Amino acid sequence: MQFSVLVDIRLRGGISDPAGATIERVLPVLGYEGIADVTVGKTIRFTIDAVDAEAAQAAAAELTESFLTNPVIEDADLTIETVSPGAGT
Amino acid sequence: MQFSVLVDIRLRGGISDPAGATIERVLPVLGYEGIADVTVGKTIRFTIDAVDAEAAQAAAAELTESFLTNPVIEDADLTIETVSPGAGT
Repeated sequence: MQFSVLVDIRLRGGISDPAGATIERVLPVLGYEGIADVTVGKTIRFTIDAVDAEAAQAAAAELTESFLTNPVIEDADLTIETVSPGAGT
Repeated sequence: MQFSVLVDIRLRGGISDPAGATIERVLPVLGYEGIADVTVGKTIRFTIDAVDAEAAQAAAAELTESFLTNPVIEDADLTIETVSPGAGT
C-alpha cells in the first residue's frame, strides 16, 4: 500500500529563530501591525510504500528522526494518510 | 481578539524542487526504499490581532500574498484559529 506522509518540522521552544525574528521585525516597517510570535518551519512531503499504516508510520518516524530533522533543535509532527491500496499486494 | 495563523507554503506543481529531488535521490543510498514524490515546503506561524476571524483571515491572506510567498512559484494554505478573546474589546 502507498501512504502519503507530511513531516511538519518546527524549531524546539527556546531555540533561536532568526528567520522568524527578521520577519517579525520588518513587518511594522511594511505597515503590518499586531503580528507577533513569528516562527518559520519546514515541511517535507513524500509517499512511502508499506504493508500497512503502522509500518508506514514506523518507517517514516525512523527516517524523520535519523535524517530529515535534527532532533536536538527540531520537533517533527507526522501526518500519514492512505493514498491507494497497492496493486499486486 | 487574537488569532494564530499557520501559512503552509508549497512550490506550485511543475516548479523544480531541488531540495526534494536531492533527498529523494540520496534515500536509497542510505537504505530507505519505496519513498517517492519528495517535496520540501515552508511553514510560517504567527499570531495576529484582529476584530474577528474574517478580518484576521483577510489580513493574513494579504500579508501572505504580498510578502511571505512568491505567488509566481508558490501556493499557500492558511489555517486560522482563535487563540483568545481580546482583553479590552
